[in-house]
Amino acid sequence: MNLKVIAFDADDTLFINEPYFEETEKKFCGIMEDYLSHQSISQELFTTQINNLPLYGYGIKGYILSMIEAAVKISEGTLTVNSIQKIINLGKELTQKPIVLLEGVEQTLSALQGHYKLVVATKGDLKDQHRKLHDSGLGHYFHHIEVMSDKKAIDYRKLIKRLDIVPEEFYMIGNSLKSDVLPVLEIGGHACHVPFHTTWAHEMIDHNVEHENFSEIANITEVLSLLLPKSA
Amino acid sequence: MNLKVIAFDADDTLFINEPYFEETEKKFCGIMEDYLSHQSISQELFTTQINNLPLYGYGIKGYILSMIEAAVKISEGTLTVNSIQKIINLGKELTQKPIVLLEGVEQTLSALQGHYKLVVATKGDLKDQHRKLHDSGLGHYFHHIEVMSDKKAIDYRKLIKRLDIVPEEFYMIGNSLKSDVLPVLEIGGHACHVPFHTTWAHEMIDHNVEHENFSEIANITEVLSLLLPKSA
Repeated sequence: MNLKVIAFDADDTLFINEPYFEETEKKFCGIMEDYLSHQSISQELFTTQINNLPLYGYGIKGYILSMIEAAVKISEGTLTVNSIQKIINLGKELTQKPIVLLEGVEQTLSALQGHYKLVVATKGDLKDQHRKLHDSGLGHYFHHIEVMSDKKAIDYRKLIKRLDIVPEEFYMIGNSLKSDVLPVLEIGGHACHVPFHTTWAHEMIDHNVEHENFSEIANITEVLSLLLPKSA
Repeated sequence: MNLKVIAFDADDTLFINEPYFEETEKKFCGIMEDYLSHQSISQELFTTQINNLPLYGYGIKGYILSMIEAAVKISEGTLTVNSIQKIINLGKELTQKPIVLLEGVEQTLSALQGHYKLVVATKGDLKDQHRKLHDSGLGHYFHHIEVMSDKKAIDYRKLIKRLDIVPEEFYMIGNSLKSDVLPVLEIGGHACHVPFHTTWAHEMIDHNVEHENFSEIANITEVLSLLLPKSA
């Protein structure tokens, strides 16, 4: 491998994220539980989110807007706006959650620094991702952060063009096979999967990945033995 | 000047934007006019937006969330959620407005192409800005689009680092003295102001700009005589 750029996904790769969304969704179901079962509320929220993706894209503000829209629909217009305010407050709390690094992240970044250009490549809201990277204290390890509006093959092609490299020089590390691995392999890059215990339903795929440019590891520190020269 | 990158603001520099927000705000005031005067509603919306900037940042989704929050507050909790749905619909319409290029934009980009690396440097929502650039048909003129979470001096320093240039090689063109001109001059870059007839209150400044690296033009095509070599 002749790698130049190592890109890290952020949410649930560098620091925890999905558990915060699950906690928020639980509280949202609590606000709405006079109308439907928690399961049906979650289903309605998920459907609303997916329908809104073409307009809002990924990230926290679209999520808050989808909660509000789902609430109006679930209540068939009978909800009070005080409940809307509660949902807005839930959303604002979510934008201020403390950043908890995953095990081994700092050690990994510290060891890779100087060997490659390190970047963050993440979906989501620009403001939210910049805030989280800042609060993580990891910013100084990275040349910069790339917030992408999606993580499909075309988005990675644009990213690689911006980085002025070719796909063979690009290595992506992340917790989502669908977003961090498959599209990168498709365009000829390298990808490494570090599973996280919780995955958003939208990110799940139902098959295994086998590819010469693909690695699967259990802890992010294991990437060091793949990317660093063996010492004598 | 030894310029390498010419950066263009997007909203109200390449295509119209603020008039769409003003149109939406007028409709929002219409929904809320049983509670307050249009002027007081606008003032409450503006205050809510500014208060939410640290959490939501710039852009269309934060604007929709601020309309909803302002509506709950203005009605003192008495609004029906059907009005909330109307506001959500207003917001969704705003994410789908047609892109209308400003006069001279295409001619200017076409003439500059090949002489410099051209980029878009804009604040706002990632998804929304990508959609607008795509719909504008101007994408092929630009090396890439930089969506920035803010346009302060520190944000331009990061941008210039990402572009692997020095500030003296950077030239910014935009309609906001506050966001497109002053911070760029502050870090040693070049800036050109092309006023648009309408400016968001938050972008206004109350003094004139005089600086050796600063130009003011009435139409974007005038930048060509500043940036292109004189023909014999």
